[in-house]
Amino acid sequence: MSVPLLILVTRPVIGVTDGRTDVVDPDSEGRTSAGFHFADASAPQLSVLDLGVSRGDGVFDSLMVAEGRIPALETHLARFATSARLLDLPEPDRAVWRAAVAAAVATHPPVPVLAVKLVLTRGVEGSGVPTAWVLAQPARDFTEVRREGVKVVTLDRGYRHDVAATSPWLLQGAKSLSYAVNAAAIREAQRRGADDVIFISSDGFVLEAPTASVLLREGNRFSTPSAELGILAGTTQGRAFEFLRTYGYETDAVRLRASELRRADAIWLVSSIRQAVAVTELDGQPVGVDERLTEQLNTHLAHAAD
Amino acid sequence: MSVPLLILVTRPVIGVTDGRTDVVDPDSEGRTSAGFHFADASAPQLSVLDLGVSRGDGVFDSLMVAEGRIPALETHLARFATSARLLDLPEPDRAVWRAAVAAAVATHPPVPVLAVKLVLTRGVEGSGVPTAWVLAQPARDFTEVRREGVKVVTLDRGYRHDVAATSPWLLQGAKSLSYAVNAAAIREAQRRGADDVIFISSDGFVLEAPTASVLLREGNRFSTPSAELGILAGTTQGRAFEFLRTYGYETDAVRLRASELRRADAIWLVSSIRQAVAVTELDGQPVGVDERLTEQLNTHLAHAAD
Repeated sequence: MSVPLLILVTRPVIGVTDGRTDVVDPDSEGRTSAGFHFADASAPQLSVLDLGVSRGDGVFDSLMVAEGRIPALETHLARFATSARLLDLPEPDRAVWRAAVAAAVATHPPVPVLAVKLVLTRGVEGSGVPTAWVLAQPARDFTEVRREGVKVVTLDRGYRHDVAATSPWLLQGAKSLSYAVNAAAIREAQRRGADDVIFISSDGFVLEAPTASVLLREGNRFSTPSAELGILAGTTQGRAFEFLRTYGYETDAVRLRASELRRADAIWLVSSIRQAVAVTELDGQPVGVDERLTEQLNTHLAHAAD
Repeated sequence: MSVPLLILVTRPVIGVTDGRTDVVDPDSEGRTSAGFHFADASAPQLSVLDLGVSRGDGVFDSLMVAEGRIPALETHLARFATSARLLDLPEPDRAVWRAAVAAAVATHPPVPVLAVKLVLTRGVEGSGVPTAWVLAQPARDFTEVRREGVKVVTLDRGYRHDVAATSPWLLQGAKSLSYAVNAAAIREAQRRGADDVIFISSDGFVLEAPTASVLLREGNRFSTPSAELGILAGTTQGRAFEFLRTYGYETDAVRLRASELRRADAIWLVSSIRQAVAVTELDGQPVGVDERLTEQLNTHLAHAAD
């Protein structure tokens, strides 16, 4: 089993340092002026006093690296900054994160697909210094899932479609470390004999999957729930729409009623690492599947440069 | 500054061990057959791969220890087990946790009030072995807060009052590590010039504070929102009600409309460590304060055995 590659980011945010970042040459512990250093992922690296674990108080983002290229890196960095802002965390220093990601990709042994995770927490309680790291590890092989598709159940997310505007403290639209509900929803899906979930707002609008965006096809028109619904701006959804437009499809971000899911010609869940997977069943009912388009889409997502 | 006392629990749940628990005498690393061992809280102890931090996927509970006694230990252990069950975590072995808490209390240098935290996470992803610890540290001194009270704003929790029954995957009623919303709500209160929050359900019922239960007084009657509203069963609320009944007050767990908050003679937030604090302002309007009863209640909470 390969050991994940870990980089601790010591200068993760603009205007905040931990006082360890003024060295120009690597010191005995490998620190550099770059604002990060390599660390041993197989050893404990986090304090139990870190608010990232004691309160789920932090943000993350996940990138896919195929053949050394990182699709949509800047979009991911922008989303990471948005998540930080929604949690009132200081602004990530993109130059440092960009360099840390590049160092992780350059250093990890070659693998077909590398999953890279960026994490920024509020740090040890009372310290005022965020904790931050980049973790790179071989991505799980989703080839079969992409071929077979997933069975999905719809579950109530409990919130109205407009809470991101009315109640920003609910942190909808932020990719926060407080993901226990997302994990619980996937366990509920498994109890119901399914693989994944599409969340519905309490007032009946399609939202997102716990770790993916939702795409619908009706004829030549593709749609996805609009980000104003308090959902995550899907980086892969954006890349998928660009691709579909080059094929002459219409694309749109809209409000979709749950009933429109049931009328769709096809449904996909799209995310950075698993890419595009067709929904084969929705709440126990079969859904149309376009195997050829799924394959084309995944070829594009895996290989196309931005 | 005193260093927190940390105990890693190696046999936290019934029927699951990490293979390190079969020693009878303490080994060179201080492990014993008790299912836990002392560790250095000032050193990193957690893997970045732990689902407790990568997904906020775990549960906790907080106890107050005054003069070596732990009020309501069994109630806290029962609630900890309920939280674990709601997250589909294996059942905590209460004998091991009870012994670990006792060891922490016996070992920590004497302080006026000790705060003890129990944490159980789903462990390192893919390991199937939970991570668990007990952390003991001197409690912050809340004497002045108890004397001065807190200004509170009401904020929409976004969920209907009945989601714990209709949508258990939302994990309402569990004390999970995914507490980013609770922290964000308190920051929102501070932005509004207040100290704390009372959450209201999307359909208008009083719920709880981010880290406390709500008590209302109307004449000789005390009420608190019922646990069926998907809120945490308040251990301190339970102890407060026992005390109030001995003083001849009526107590009841009910559904309260937000408008009833505004009509209350007095409001308190109660929790294990901060104990009972009077609400002096609600959404900018003054609230009646009963200083004498607050003091009596806190004397009882700090000193009475169960």
